[in-house]
Amino acid sequence: MVNQSDPDPLGRVFQAMADPTRRAIVERLVRGPATVKAIAEPLTMSLPAVMQHLQVLQAAGVIVTEKVGRVRSCRIEPTALRQAEQWLGRQRTETERQLDQLDDYLKGK
Amino acid sequence: MVNQSDPDPLGRVFQAMADPTRRAIVERLVRGPATVKAIAEPLTMSLPAVMQHLQVLQAAGVIVTEKVGRVRSCRIEPTALRQAEQWLGRQRTETERQLDQLDDYLKGK
Repeated sequence: MVNQSDPDPLGRVFQAMADPTRRAIVERLVRGPATVKAIAEPLTMSLPAVMQHLQVLQAAGVIVTEKVGRVRSCRIEPTALRQAEQWLGRQRTETERQLDQLDDYLKGK
Repeated sequence: MVNQSDPDPLGRVFQAMADPTRRAIVERLVRGPATVKAIAEPLTMSLPAVMQHLQVLQAAGVIVTEKVGRVRSCRIEPTALRQAEQWLGRQRTETERQLDQLDDYLKGK
């Protein structure tokens, strides 16, 4: 869930995506929820470093973490990524819009 | 143009988009090229601060600047934004993919 009191929630999502490790974690989690241990396993860094990246993703509303017994697992919360994607989607120049329309026309849409 | 020797060009684009002023500049420039003066005009900050934001956007390959005589103007270079949009578009959970398919089906696509 995106934090509503955050003055720039979209900025936090983009900031979270600015790091290659955090993008790798997102790429892992879109395939399904995973424990912190499973997320950390392929990454060449300490567990505290991984936890820090997970905290940034969580603060941006990109992931949700849940503790069941002693195991903490993470999953994607899709809304934040979709809002960032939609913002980028709206940033199209007139030339791009015209090319999109031509493309749709040629595909018979 | 995205700098090919940059170890993380996509990270630079997301970093550039993490700031609300830089997003406002992008929103202005998708409507058409503009001079630095015209970009700075609605922004409540000094010209050097605006120039710094433009430099971040330029280093990320999001904008191109050109000096004609004494006037520097800026325009969007769409590739970088489209690459970031496409990366986000690929980060869809299985549930989202299924909902997208259902949506396409209901729309008769």
